[in-house]
Amino acid sequence: MPIQTIEWRSGPPGYARLIEQTRLPSEAVYLDVHDVPAMVDAIYRLAVRGAPAIGVAAAYGVLLGVQGRSGDRPEALLAHLDAVVRQLAAARPTAVNLFWALKRMQARACAVAAQGADSARIIAALFAEAQAIHREDAEQCRRMGELGAPLIRDGMRLLTHCNAGALATGGIGTALAPLYTAWAAGRRFEVFADETRPLLQGARLTAYELSQAGIPVTLITDNMAGRVMSEGRVDAVFVGSDRIAANGDVCNKIGTYSVAVLARHHGIPFYVVAPLSTFDAEVATGAEIPIEERPASEVTHGFGKQTAPAGVRVYNPAFDVTPAGLVSAIITEAGILERPDRAGVRRLLESARTPVGN
Amino acid sequence: MPIQTIEWRSGPPGYARLIEQTRLPSEAVYLDVHDVPAMVDAIYRLAVRGAPAIGVAAAYGVLLGVQGRSGDRPEALLAHLDAVVRQLAAARPTAVNLFWALKRMQARACAVAAQGADSARIIAALFAEAQAIHREDAEQCRRMGELGAPLIRDGMRLLTHCNAGALATGGIGTALAPLYTAWAAGRRFEVFADETRPLLQGARLTAYELSQAGIPVTLITDNMAGRVMSEGRVDAVFVGSDRIAANGDVCNKIGTYSVAVLARHHGIPFYVVAPLSTFDAEVATGAEIPIEERPASEVTHGFGKQTAPAGVRVYNPAFDVTPAGLVSAIITEAGILERPDRAGVRRLLESARTPVGN
Repeated sequence: MPIQTIEWRSGPPGYARLIEQTRLPSEAVYLDVHDVPAMVDAIYRLAVRGAPAIGVAAAYGVLLGVQGRSGDRPEALLAHLDAVVRQLAAARPTAVNLFWALKRMQARACAVAAQGADSARIIAALFAEAQAIHREDAEQCRRMGELGAPLIRDGMRLLTHCNAGALATGGIGTALAPLYTAWAAGRRFEVFADETRPLLQGARLTAYELSQAGIPVTLITDNMAGRVMSEGRVDAVFVGSDRIAANGDVCNKIGTYSVAVLARHHGIPFYVVAPLSTFDAEVATGAEIPIEERPASEVTHGFGKQTAPAGVRVYNPAFDVTPAGLVSAIITEAGILERPDRAGVRRLLESARTPVGN
Repeated sequence: MPIQTIEWRSGPPGYARLIEQTRLPSEAVYLDVHDVPAMVDAIYRLAVRGAPAIGVAAAYGVLLGVQGRSGDRPEALLAHLDAVVRQLAAARPTAVNLFWALKRMQARACAVAAQGADSARIIAALFAEAQAIHREDAEQCRRMGELGAPLIRDGMRLLTHCNAGALATGGIGTALAPLYTAWAAGRRFEVFADETRPLLQGARLTAYELSQAGIPVTLITDNMAGRVMSEGRVDAVFVGSDRIAANGDVCNKIGTYSVAVLARHHGIPFYVVAPLSTFDAEVATGAEIPIEERPASEVTHGFGKQTAPAGVRVYNPAFDVTPAGLVSAIITEAGILERPDRAGVRRLLESARTPVGN
């Protein structure tokens, strides 16, 4: 496994250890997170980022909030849990995995409390749930890698945008999982990594983790993707997703949509790799997904240096939406959905809910 | 006129004064260039950039090389001129205006020498020729502005890539000339400026000069162009060009091609504004245009800070080629060529060679 992005260090009191992603690639520094505000800050600052890793971080954030409170009355603990969940949920409005993980933690607490558990047992259940979220994430990554790897043949040239790798998950990544699995199986290929302005996750993180794993990677600026495609140097695109609507529209890092349009124009397959938890059946289409706008300074002072005139107006949406019609397939841990649409998404989500053997 | 990019300050010895574009937008500093190596360096470092401005800079570079040599024998002066031209020509291999201006200077020197002129008169002719190149550039910009302005209606939202404005020419720009002219005529509109990685000409220069002129401008990263188009917020794209092939293929700053594909996908007109001197009838198609590759450090250390892992492989083409089929029209000082193709380019160039009244 390429890089351990997040882990829980047992206590008491326990704490979360994250690789501080804002310091990569020049320094590989770990950040120990001891309380809820520090976790909110880490998620907001993108010290930990990537939808699945945010889910794991949120679950561990809940543990930071509840540990040591076994003396509370259960109702007081649940009220406190509620406050903790609200704090964590406010850290990033677009990340559906954040809400998903927090809801799951809260549901578990309520379930054991309803059975009459005391606070010590509620807290123990939350610990077990957070570990399960992390373990399942790693397992889903492994499975997406296994399912997606056959799409990668020897000699291929791939392109990816942003970072949906090990650094974005508690496992081997989403978009990059098929690459790691294919590489481990002996297939040889190379990768173009879009640098991904404004925060340069592609340059800082994807180029870093692929290099570390020995996979040949060439860094380009975002506006070169069209050029390398027109030169016939890209055979497939692999990206992750932050949220997928019920009709298969894909919300992902800003710039993904441009890459999808370019891929379509050049007849290049465009693959989205994302766990089922990324699907949000409550939003009918991508148009309903709220798009987080981030500070102008990310664009005007992104590198510690002013690169635009003082006071210039900036538009800085952190995400965009790729219509399902531009997506060749969505690779999930439960299977590959080709040419995604509303009916296909529904079938996929229903089949995943049906236990094996039914 | 928004900004004076380049001017000749008379001596003796005279020198060229340039606005130092690598220091914009935080500082408006002028650079006085006193000799040929300094002009080569200014062109190479992009202290002066933009095809037409490079032509003017090259012509003034020739003056720096020949002034004060009126005591030379004419053959010695012409041999020295040849060496100066070679030095200047090596500064940037893709800029056709550089070669065009140098050839024109050399042709003028040869013509007057062939008439038996002494070195003083050859030098005087070169001074007149350099001033004519600058004056004609400004006049062409004015004319492109006049012809292109009617394409801009009240309330439009425009998008531009890189900088093809006053800072790229000896006049009011190429791509931005129609904007300045329409604005001066009272039409009101707004502009999205792509920041244009790696060197950020859009953020540093276009956002700067449009702001200075009072035209509302919103800065975006290159990978947001698709998003703003999908939101229905772009009515037309205006870009410049560094070289146009005989079939109408347009070589321009890296990223232009991606914008053209996105514009086509969204049904948005894509206009190229360039003087006739940008056409290179000797290259049949864009595929024959050599594309300058620039150092990896522009991508990995673009802002004085390392933003990618040490030693990562980088692909850094400075230009790309937009096929003529994606171009709605090319606006030149001699007229507008809609849906450019080989026949249309030929007609345009032939009509421009025919004196009025013939």
